[in-house]
Amino acid sequence: MRWPNGLDGLCYGGDYNPEQWPESTWVEDVSLMRKAQVNLVTVGVFAWSRLEPQPGRYVVDWLDRVLDLLHDGGVKVVLATPTAAPPPWFSLAHPDALPVTAEGVRLHHGSRDTYCAAAPAYRDAARAVATMLAERYRDHPALAMWHVHNEYGTICHCPHAAAAFRRWLRERYGDLDGLNQAWTGSFWSQSYSDWAQVDVPRATQYLANPTQVLDFRRFWSDELLAAYVEQRDVLRRATPDVPVTTNYVLADWVPVDHARWSSEVDLVAIDHYPGETDGRAEEQTAFAADLARSWAGRRPWLLMESAPNLIYRYAEGVYAGKEPDRMLRHSLAHVARGSRGAMFFQWRAPRGGAEVFHSAMVPHAGADSRTFQATTRLGELLTGLAETDAGTVAAHAAISWDAASGWALQHPGMPSRHISYADEVAAAYRALWRCGVTTDVVCPTAATFDLTGYRMLVLPALYLMSDAVADAVAAWVHDGGHLVVSYLSGVADPAAQVRLGGYPGALRDLLGVRAEQFLPLEPAATVRLTGGRTGRLWQERLTAPDADPVLRYAAGVLAGQPAVTRRRVGAGTAWYLSTRLDDDGYRDLLAVIAAEAGVLPVLPGAPAGVEAVRKVAGDDRWLFVFNHGTTPVEVDVWGEDLVSARVVSGAVRIAEGGVMVLREQPPRRRRRRAH
Amino acid sequence: MRWPNGLDGLCYGGDYNPEQWPESTWVEDVSLMRKAQVNLVTVGVFAWSRLEPQPGRYVVDWLDRVLDLLHDGGVKVVLATPTAAPPPWFSLAHPDALPVTAEGVRLHHGSRDTYCAAAPAYRDAARAVATMLAERYRDHPALAMWHVHNEYGTICHCPHAAAAFRRWLRERYGDLDGLNQAWTGSFWSQSYSDWAQVDVPRATQYLANPTQVLDFRRFWSDELLAAYVEQRDVLRRATPDVPVTTNYVLADWVPVDHARWSSEVDLVAIDHYPGETDGRAEEQTAFAADLARSWAGRRPWLLMESAPNLIYRYAEGVYAGKEPDRMLRHSLAHVARGSRGAMFFQWRAPRGGAEVFHSAMVPHAGADSRTFQATTRLGELLTGLAETDAGTVAAHAAISWDAASGWALQHPGMPSRHISYADEVAAAYRALWRCGVTTDVVCPTAATFDLTGYRMLVLPALYLMSDAVADAVAAWVHDGGHLVVSYLSGVADPAAQVRLGGYPGALRDLLGVRAEQFLPLEPAATVRLTGGRTGRLWQERLTAPDADPVLRYAAGVLAGQPAVTRRRVGAGTAWYLSTRLDDDGYRDLLAVIAAEAGVLPVLPGAPAGVEAVRKVAGDDRWLFVFNHGTTPVEVDVWGEDLVSARVVSGAVRIAEGGVMVLREQPPRRRRRRAH
Amino acid sequence: MRWPNGLDGLCYGGDYNPEQWPESTWVEDVSLMRKAQVNLVTVGVFAWSRLEPQPGRYVVDWLDRVLDLLHDGGVKVVLATPTAAPPPWFSLAHPDALPVTAEGVRLHHGSRDTYCAAAPAYRDAARAVATMLAERYRDHPALAMWHVHNEYGTICHCPHAAAAFRRWLRERYGDLDGLNQAWTGSFWSQSYSDWAQVDVPRATQYLANPTQVLDFRRFWSDELLAAYVEQRDVLRRATPDVPVTTNYVLADWVPVDHARWSSEVDLVAIDHYPGETDGRAEEQTAFAADLARSWAGRRPWLLMESAPNLIYRYAEGVYAGKEPDRMLRHSLAHVARGSRGAMFFQWRAPRGGAEVFHSAMVPHAGADSRTFQATTRLGELLTGLAETDAGTVAAHAAISWDAASGWALQHPGMPSRHISYADEVAAAYRALWRCGVTTDVVCPTAATFDLTGYRMLVLPALYLMSDAVADAVAAWVHDGGHLVVSYLSGVADPAAQVRLGGYPGALRDLLGVRAEQFLPLEPAATVRLTGGRTGRLWQERLTAPDADPVLRYAAGVLAGQPAVTRRRVGAGTAWYLSTRLDDDGYRDLLAVIAAEAGVLPVLPGAPAGVEAVRKVAGDDRWLFVFNHGTTPVEVDVWGEDLVSARVVSGAVRIAEGGVMVLREQPPRRRRRRAH
Repeated sequence: MRWPNGLDGLCYGGDYNPEQWPESTWVEDVSLMRKAQVNLVTVGVFAWSRLEPQPGRYVVDWLDRVLDLLHDGGVKVVLATPTAAPPPWFSLAHPDALPVTAEGVRLHHGSRDTYCAAAPAYRDAARAVATMLAERYRDHPALAMWHVHNEYGTICHCPHAAAAFRRWLRERYGDLDGLNQAWTGSFWSQSYSDWAQVDVPRATQYLANPTQVLDFRRFWSDELLAAYVEQRDVLRRATPDVPVTTNYVLADWVPVDHARWSSEVDLVAIDHYPGETDGRAEEQTAFAADLARSWAGRRPWLLMESAPNLIYRYAEGVYAGKEPDRMLRHSLAHVARGSRGAMFFQWRAPRGGAEVFHSAMVPHAGADSRTFQATTRLGELLTGLAETDAGTVAAHAAISWDAASGWALQHPGMPSRHISYADEVAAAYRALWRCGVTTDVVCPTAATFDLTGYRMLVLPALYLMSDAVADAVAAWVHDGGHLVVSYLSGVADPAAQVRLGGYPGALRDLLGVRAEQFLPLEPAATVRLTGGRTGRLWQERLTAPDADPVLRYAAGVLAGQPAVTRRRVGAGTAWYLSTRLDDDGYRDLLAVIAAEAGVLPVLPGAPAGVEAVRKVAGDDRWLFVFNHGTTPVEVDVWGEDLVSARVVSGAVRIAEGGVMVLREQPPRRRRRRAH
Repeated sequence: MRWPNGLDGLCYGGDYNPEQWPESTWVEDVSLMRKAQVNLVTVGVFAWSRLEPQPGRYVVDWLDRVLDLLHDGGVKVVLATPTAAPPPWFSLAHPDALPVTAEGVRLHHGSRDTYCAAAPAYRDAARAVATMLAERYRDHPALAMWHVHNEYGTICHCPHAAAAFRRWLRERYGDLDGLNQAWTGSFWSQSYSDWAQVDVPRATQYLANPTQVLDFRRFWSDELLAAYVEQRDVLRRATPDVPVTTNYVLADWVPVDHARWSSEVDLVAIDHYPGETDGRAEEQTAFAADLARSWAGRRPWLLMESAPNLIYRYAEGVYAGKEPDRMLRHSLAHVARGSRGAMFFQWRAPRGGAEVFHSAMVPHAGADSRTFQATTRLGELLTGLAETDAGTVAAHAAISWDAASGWALQHPGMPSRHISYADEVAAAYRALWRCGVTTDVVCPTAATFDLTGYRMLVLPALYLMSDAVADAVAAWVHDGGHLVVSYLSGVADPAAQVRLGGYPGALRDLLGVRAEQFLPLEPAATVRLTGGRTGRLWQERLTAPDADPVLRYAAGVLAGQPAVTRRRVGAGTAWYLSTRLDDDGYRDLLAVIAAEAGVLPVLPGAPAGVEAVRKVAGDDRWLFVFNHGTTPVEVDVWGEDLVSARVVSGAVRIAEGGVMVLREQPPRRRRRRAH
Repeated sequence: MRWPNGLDGLCYGGDYNPEQWPESTWVEDVSLMRKAQVNLVTVGVFAWSRLEPQPGRYVVDWLDRVLDLLHDGGVKVVLATPTAAPPPWFSLAHPDALPVTAEGVRLHHGSRDTYCAAAPAYRDAARAVATMLAERYRDHPALAMWHVHNEYGTICHCPHAAAAFRRWLRERYGDLDGLNQAWTGSFWSQSYSDWAQVDVPRATQYLANPTQVLDFRRFWSDELLAAYVEQRDVLRRATPDVPVTTNYVLADWVPVDHARWSSEVDLVAIDHYPGETDGRAEEQTAFAADLARSWAGRRPWLLMESAPNLIYRYAEGVYAGKEPDRMLRHSLAHVARGSRGAMFFQWRAPRGGAEVFHSAMVPHAGADSRTFQATTRLGELLTGLAETDAGTVAAHAAISWDAASGWALQHPGMPSRHISYADEVAAAYRALWRCGVTTDVVCPTAATFDLTGYRMLVLPALYLMSDAVADAVAAWVHDGGHLVVSYLSGVADPAAQVRLGGYPGALRDLLGVRAEQFLPLEPAATVRLTGGRTGRLWQERLTAPDADPVLRYAAGVLAGQPAVTRRRVGAGTAWYLSTRLDDDGYRDLLAVIAAEAGVLPVLPGAPAGVEAVRKVAGDDRWLFVFNHGTTPVEVDVWGEDLVSARVVSGAVRIAEGGVMVLREQPPRRRRRRAH
């Protein structure tokens, strides 16, 4: 793993777009950055038309001056290649490199990301501008890291994409027999007899082939990765010692399996924008951070973008506010879970353009603002927390995340259109989070997939499961693991073909259960369970030939039949959930299982709304404690609070919205100090 | 009428797709079919790419083996032409035969039904593969029936379609004057001066011409019928004695007027998938069966597809469960109303493909399943009911169904977008069904349209009405018929032009009413009527110059004015409903009218939720009695119950969800047996 | 200003489409028109294919006969050019003149308005048919006015449109630097280096450039105006003394800034269809009329289309009824606010076509109908009100309307998608209307923009504000004006670029407030304010460094902070509203401000639901009083009621739904007459 060059302590800053401002503003910017203790900014993300206003004519003197200014101000630079926004001249010259929708609509210039990443003209132009930047700035002292592109995730259905898809399929399946087998060509007369017949999933009369659609997403993940690698290699050749990364966008619609990308970046970097305004924003933040740590192989990573003072409620059509204390807690929550700092989109709010109202550290109102005050406060804090950068997070529980399962579950032929993979994982993660348990994320498609060291594992809706993963899970349980599996896990193989003989195919024997039929519930419906619990969204006609029913359906057509089961397997146990438990029921059940597994909360007995994460480096331990609630709480902790610079011990009060970062000391040293 | 060749008793089976499975599974399949007493399966529906993997290269040895195996197992075959799913090579070779949407989007391979049925290349290829099958299997002993294509209903807006549409219009209207007159060319400058100007209804700036749209649907119904007839003729030439059919799909979106198709099939066959999970699934089942019987000229027909254990709630996005007793009741309800058996989609659930979770007699779990047990139970039952196949159903009440009226009412220029023709008919049918009255369906566009023998007729929203139909209805009333007409009937002529002078134009004099204005209600609104009833969806400013108000509006701008009227006409009566009565009010009103008309319930005094249908053959009578409710009921019946093999008499109990099929005996024989 | 030629008194009539009917109907039509005292009809609006069935072949004898018949019957004619509906032959011959959507879909013949107004072939054909009509009917004695086209508002994205857009942009911005500056080309790499790169806003990958989209709408407004002017000039050359107009359509989706059109029409004419059925239809009517008067430079104008007996609830999918008394009140409300009469769409309901159920003075039921009775009654009334045509309306309060601000607020990058400019203006107007205050509308983009004479001005969501307008407003306040500004006003400049330093940029100093952050509320949310008021939709983090808080937020994150402020400025005051007040709160606040400003209600103390408007001509005054409520009211008025032909005085009762038009007399004359 490599790090931003020449940086001490935690990274702090954001996307900086000097091309939008006159030079006089640059001077003010650097001055304000110093005031806010910003030490790192991302420059150039969408500057292509400024850097190369006409094909091959580069105009970079302004960028020279920007980098010099920043360097003089003590601010390091993540220099971005601008390839996520080709200039107008490119779009006009290369109409074949404009993207095409499934319906055959050719998209046109007017936004960002309007290109086909499989088009040779695009790839050539992207490599060229990256090469220019690499050559010009390879030795600039401000250069700390390269940032390739922005939020890879744009797909296309044009002939270039189709050709690349066919190449990818040939490599995956070898011959058409393999393809026909995997795609169930025998269904609806879809057997191919010549590669030329194979196409991307374009608009068609009725339901599309689910495996074709799934493979198309897998292909795009790999094709976009190839586009990234091309640029990375250019940059790496120029500056072997400067790390290269790209910022992952965490969104349902992105056809990117980041788990397979992480071996190609020097530092995993994510953009994270929670979408909830209630307590769930904090769960979303924790999960994103744990996921990033997982992609990074449990090592540090970087929060590359977040919003200083807004929460984007896209589904609700509203930009909601994020109060300064919340901005601070979210930033530190990322640091606690392994981020090397806190970066924002963006430094200064633009005057115009499509995102004129996006969040910024320097808002339209300017530096004389509550938001900039919060920016300055966070800079101070992060400076004081520099030592925690050495720590890492250890977890004994894990939850699975599999991009491809999420894609497969989106097929309209599924028994319910109301199942969202992200929601399924979020519900399980929420239950763990509310137990106070630190959780890793494991990605079955990652090269690094490994269950060693975990005592508890939750698999929510892990729809696609290879034999190898199923075997690994079974072996881990036999060796003493405590497994929790929810409905829709193990149902299909990686080709999205259902495993026969009863659900959940790949895990049926391990769990000792067999489901014969899915009986999804309509969105507003619930079903009573025994023990005062309720289920929703999903039900199954389940038998438990080799497991103990723990909860049963208490109403409806399944009344009296098993809903949640438990089986002892070797040294471990295997639990199955055939319905979505209510939130409290889910938490209580996982708390029981965690206790059985010996997985302890970080801060046992912490009140609701309190989040605690510990970082460790050798003998050094830092405990991050957040009070996300709206009333003060007391927690039982001790050490030096790096936030308030106080030494605390015992029942310590944290104000509503407050945070402490305690330098915990080993008992011996504590005792010494106490006398 | 012709019948599946060589079959005794009732048909039982489903769609069978051996091309999806290895040969070892075929052997298991036939064994399980025997176990379930399956005697008929539909083979080859989507097997085109397996049968003809490359243009003109036929691979049929596998199908030979399948048919031989089935024959050896005593299972007859409905052999399908696979033309609903052209192979990939076809789509690649004939891009002009791919369908085009109204917006000009050319659809591509990737699903099923992706062709333009007016494209010569498609028609040629379809005829060729049908010819091959006819030649090869004309003498196969398993062959019981031909099944052309699958669920005709796909339309296209390409130049082939436009040319065919113009030919159809020339035939319908003779010259452009006729077209301009019918299409109201004087509105919005739409008079055509050359046939070349006439096009299919493509995406346009604002509201489309309603008659153009209506005729386009009529055209497609005829064009698809022509495609069917071409294949049928090929098959009939090869096997003059083997019946030929195609399966009708019952869905709002299908531009097919099945009433006009039925003279071209040897056995009317329908696919039926109710979409409701409450008691309405049973009404939907009854109506579908009555409609099929109507299309079949009141003679037997065949339920070709139904779902063993699921109810597809597409609008709600959920596949709901269908319990075994309900599967049984639905199957027997079809048989009771004239189906020659019960066929399912599908025999065995596929491992992959777009419909991987559709229902099957052998589910993913395999034969060791509740669903297969139910399959076996139904096989037994149908075997025991073989004698009922001889019976036919007699009805003295009728309701109208007119596909074209449904299409016309979909125009966005109608006074309310909340009127669904299917819902209007369903509401009226529900009222009759809840009266316990057996009902025929009459289709005004059918060659066989005839009101002779009916004592009661309900016309719900029969928007388009020719003079001939209006005259026939009037004559029938004068001769003693009891007519019930709802709003939106008779308003327009077959060109969708409004009949002037007041609504409901064609029936105004017959009903003795005149409406001046439509005042539709918003979806959630209701209006109070006299007699404690309520109306919804629709109101009219109505006068009754020559009729008696029976109910009046009791609130709103129409308070005090007639809502429901009655007029004595010759020996009959004519009722008018200007609003949608609440369900109970509708039932009570129709019950009164039925009583006046001398139309008796099949089982007078039957409790709610009990459905009864009688089949008769000479002196033999079979009474099917269903308890769709959730509690046991008692009914007053007598005879031998073929389901339980008990002789019953008097107050007989039927368990919740239960069914009896009584061989009723003439009183004389009953008396003998009773002593 | 010019007037319909040869007309005395008020105009009364509607769109008349003789081309849809046989000649025998024409005779009946003229007879019915005389009966209803109709004196003006609009002929020929969509008659192109009848007038020119083939290119260049004109068939006009029928129109000769129609105009002669009307003239003989004493009915004047507004003769329309038929260019809103090109004939089929045109669409076939000129596919390049068919419009293209942003997605690239070429629309086709089948509706109306299916042309690109920037296509040379269309403009040529339109000019030609207008020339033909001008030449033929220039001297016809029935000709009272020319009516160009119908409801301009159709846009296109084709290459013709793109070329015209580039020409328009060159004229607006001079060079690419200007364009890049205005469009914030520095954002997302959108700087153009060649005019050929500049395109219309076509479908693109993500959010479009908001200024490009805004300018595209401005361009189309100007391009459509140019198309109008071309035809107008043809007509004016032929008949310099006959006024020319076109009917404005008032709809959110129309990209026309009517304020910039009004200098080009001889008489402002609007089509108005309220969409609400509750009391809001009356507010909508009043606002539309006040807006039309504003466009007309506060001089008379004409209601060209309205619906006799329907209210189109498009959003709800229902055509609701409009009772005769309401039709009468709406018509007179327009007259009261300056319309030269009341015209309808349409005279006679068509038998077919896309709008077969649109409202008509002679409905499908014919002249023997309540609707035609109401038509006759209105004719009588308008005849009796002829003298009021001389009057004009005076207002001392004004509200702003700015089409471009409405367009800018539609950008999906705004902080809330739930802000509708039309709703913002409607809410403010409603508050004024409920205060009983007569209100003018001022349009900042109009050449005639002038605040002189107003004592009170409300600026709701006036998002785009030039420096000149801001300066004018400030000067007016300093001179004694009472200003009320709502959130989202003054935020951006005319290029939609945000004014920095704090919101509401252009008005910050004038109002003495500064907002740092927008905190929009979700649609169902409300926020408590002090004084028992509530806010919704919008909030701002506001400081009032130089203003007095009048209301404060009483809950939520802004609790205790200013919500509504007031600042004394010179001789005037400047109020700011940072949230949407509840309707009563808004009315009460504006009532206080109106009182401070000395703006009096027309009828002080009038009960709720009573609307009063006064017209004045020299010493003559006419007071229109409407009781829109459902119970009788008493009002304190005096004079001769031209509706009932009674002289009234003091507490006068008006029945529910009633109206009075009082010829008020100066006290002196009144006294004379009283004796």
